[in-house]
Amino acid sequence: MKIAIMGFGTVGCGVEEILYKKRKSLIKNNFDIQIDKILIKNTDKQRFPHQKDLVFTDDFDEVLNSDVDTVIDVTSSLEETHERIVALMNAGKNIVTANKAVVSKYFEELNELAVKNDVYFSYEASVAGAIPVIHPIMEEIFFSDMNKIYGILNGTSNYILSKMETEGLSYDEVLKKAQDLGYAEADPTADVGGLDAMRKIRIVSSLIYNSKINEEDIFTFGISNVTKTDFEFAKNLGYSIRLLAKCALEANNINISVIPTFVADDFFAKTFEGTNAIKVWGENFNSYEFKGPGAGKLETADAIMRDLLRILAKREIKTFYDATNSFEVENNIKHKFYIRTTEVTDGLKNIIDREKTSGENHMIVTKKVSLDELTSAIEKFDQVFISEIEEEK
Amino acid sequence: MKIAIMGFGTVGCGVEEILYKKRKSLIKNNFDIQIDKILIKNTDKQRFPHQKDLVFTDDFDEVLNSDVDTVIDVTSSLEETHERIVALMNAGKNIVTANKAVVSKYFEELNELAVKNDVYFSYEASVAGAIPVIHPIMEEIFFSDMNKIYGILNGTSNYILSKMETEGLSYDEVLKKAQDLGYAEADPTADVGGLDAMRKIRIVSSLIYNSKINEEDIFTFGISNVTKTDFEFAKNLGYSIRLLAKCALEANNINISVIPTFVADDFFAKTFEGTNAIKVWGENFNSYEFKGPGAGKLETADAIMRDLLRILAKREIKTFYDATNSFEVENNIKHKFYIRTTEVTDGLKNIIDREKTSGENHMIVTKKVSLDELTSAIEKFDQVFISEIEEEK
Repeated sequence: MKIAIMGFGTVGCGVEEILYKKRKSLIKNNFDIQIDKILIKNTDKQRFPHQKDLVFTDDFDEVLNSDVDTVIDVTSSLEETHERIVALMNAGKNIVTANKAVVSKYFEELNELAVKNDVYFSYEASVAGAIPVIHPIMEEIFFSDMNKIYGILNGTSNYILSKMETEGLSYDEVLKKAQDLGYAEADPTADVGGLDAMRKIRIVSSLIYNSKINEEDIFTFGISNVTKTDFEFAKNLGYSIRLLAKCALEANNINISVIPTFVADDFFAKTFEGTNAIKVWGENFNSYEFKGPGAGKLETADAIMRDLLRILAKREIKTFYDATNSFEVENNIKHKFYIRTTEVTDGLKNIIDREKTSGENHMIVTKKVSLDELTSAIEKFDQVFISEIEEEK
Repeated sequence: MKIAIMGFGTVGCGVEEILYKKRKSLIKNNFDIQIDKILIKNTDKQRFPHQKDLVFTDDFDEVLNSDVDTVIDVTSSLEETHERIVALMNAGKNIVTANKAVVSKYFEELNELAVKNDVYFSYEASVAGAIPVIHPIMEEIFFSDMNKIYGILNGTSNYILSKMETEGLSYDEVLKKAQDLGYAEADPTADVGGLDAMRKIRIVSSLIYNSKINEEDIFTFGISNVTKTDFEFAKNLGYSIRLLAKCALEANNINISVIPTFVADDFFAKTFEGTNAIKVWGENFNSYEFKGPGAGKLETADAIMRDLLRILAKREIKTFYDATNSFEVENNIKHKFYIRTTEVTDGLKNIIDREKTSGENHMIVTKKVSLDELTSAIEKFDQVFISEIEEEK
C-alpha cells in the first residue's frame, strides 16, 4: 500500500515515526504501508526521518500523478492546501487531513467531491487530537440524534485560562510562558481569538445536524481580553472560566458559539493545561464525555493513523453528509452573562441583573438573555470581556 | 438485510425500538434492516414491540437454520448462550453480543471461531454500555501499545459507593434503594462482588495485550463489606472510594485486579451514580478518558447498533486477537493499602505503616506492598475490607 504525505512538520514527523516504529505490528495485520513520497516546501532543509531512504519532493504534481491512492495532509496553509485536496480527490485519491481550517471552510465542497469521485475523506485529526471524536459521532448519526455538543477544543486557550486560574497569573504572563514552551504560536490570534475552536465546532455541528452552518454565523469571542479580575469575580461565585465551543439544536434552531464560560462542573472546570474535553448529548444515552490530549506530535498522528488504516482496510465510512437539513442558526437560548466593561451603554443598562464596580470597571451579571440580545446591547467588543454563565446543577 | 435477535428483555426491546424509530434514517443510509425473528424463552408472555408483526419463536433451530447472516445476542445466560453462539458462528453467522459473561469466559474460543468461519464477532455492548470503548481500542492496537487501563466498569457498585459518599448512608440502605429503583438485581452478587467488572477488564486487557488472561488469575474483591467507617477514614485522608478494574503491563508482567480504591482525582472520584468511566494509557497519547452511561435500555442498544451497522456495511474489524503474547500475570506493583479488620494476624503486623483502632476495628494503612504480598498476609477475606490507595499526584 503506497501513500503520500503533504507536509513534514511536527505531525508529519509523528506519522512517519509511527509507520516506521510499528512496521512489524502493521505488517502482521496486513498493513504493508510504503511512503511513496513526502511533499515539502524546502528541499534544502535537512530532515531526520526514521526511514533513511524516504523520497522528498517540492513538486505537487509528483504527488498528484503518483499511483498512491491515499494522501495524508498535515499542512497548515488554507487556500493552497484546499486547491491541492480538490485536485487529489478529482484524481481519485483518498484524503486524510488534520487541517481544520480547510475542513471547516470547505466542508460542503469536500464532502461533495468525495461522493462524486467515490473516495474517502477523513478528518478525525482535525478535532481534538488523539481523542476519538469524529468517527464515533459518524457511526452514531445513522441511528441516534445528537442534539448538543459542548467542548474545550483549543488547547492553547485552555492552557492560558487554567494557568491563570491555578497560578493566579495575568494573561500576558501565561501567554509568554506558553510561547516559551511552544504551546502557543508567536501569533496566537487563531487560538486565543476563538477561530480555531470555531472551526472545530463548525465541523462537528455540520456533521451531527447534516446542515450547512456558515463559519460567519458562529458567534466567536475569544479570551484575549480576560484579566485576573474576571477570574476573581468568577471565583467568588464558585466558578472558573473556560473557552467553550457549543452547539445545541432546539425546535429546528441551532444555537452555536465559541464563548468564555463560567463553569463549576466536574468536567469542563476540571480540564487543565492543553487538554481537550468534549461532551456529546444524544437521544440514546443522555450524554457521554471524552477528555484527552487535543494536540501534539504523536497525539495528532495517532488520529491520522486511525483514519489511514480504516481507509486502507476499506473500513472507513463513506461520506453521507449532504446538508439536506436547513435549520435556522440563531443564538436564542437564554442564559445569564458576565460582562466587564468600562462603558455602560443604555442597551446594557436594560439587561443588568446586578453590578459591581471597581475603579473604572463595571462587572455586570445580566438577566437571562439570549446571546443575540446580548450582542446587540454591546457596542465595542474589543473593550469588554464577556462570559456565559453556566447554570449550576 | 435480515437479522435475528436472541432475547427480548430490556436491551432487546431497546434494539427493536431504535430499529423501528430510526427506520427512515437507516434506509436513507442503505441500512434496510429486517428483524427476521426474535428468540425468546416464553412464547405465552405478552410482548409490546413497536413493529406489530414481529415473529417470535422459542425454537433456537429456527434462528440457526434461518438465512439471517447476523444475530444479536442480548441474553443473560452463560452456558446456553455460549453453545448457541458457537453453533451460530459455525453456521456462518456474524455475532453481536452484549453478554459479557460469555465474551469473557470464552474469549479465546469465540475469536478463534470467528477467524475459522470468517465471521464477525462484535461485543462493544459488553463493556461500558453506550461509551465507545472496545472499537476505538481495537483500531488503536495495530499501531499503539496501550499498557494500562483503569475503569469504573460496574454501574451498580458505583451507584452504591457514590451514594454512600454523598448521602452518608450505609451499604444496606443504599443497596435497598438501588434494588427498589431497579439499579441493582435482587441477587446483586455479580455486581457488588466485582465479578461483572472482572469480566470487563478481562475482555479489554486480553485485547490490548493480545494475551490469554484467565478469569481466575484476576484478583477480584468487591464492595459488599464496605461500611460508613471506611468512607470516614478515606475522607479524613482526602479520598473517596470507588471500585476500580485495573490492568497494567510492566516489564512483561501484567498486574490485573478489581479492587476498591481510595481515589482523589478529578476523574474517578468524580464519577457518580451508575456512570462508567474508563481511562486508557497509550504510547502515542499519555492517556484519554471516557465517561458515560454504562448500562440501560437504549444505552446498551446504542452500542449494539454501532456493531450491527459496522457488520452490515462490512466496515467491522475482523478478529485479530490470537493470544500470541504470553505475559506473566502477577500483582507485583507496590501500593499502600487500607485494611479494616477485627483480627490483626502476624502476617498483617509486618506490613502495617500506621493503624487506628475504634472498638474492635483496626483501620490499617500498610507500607507499600504488592497486592500479592497483601493477600498472603490476609487470612479471612470475608471479614475484612480492603482498598488500594492511589497515590496523589
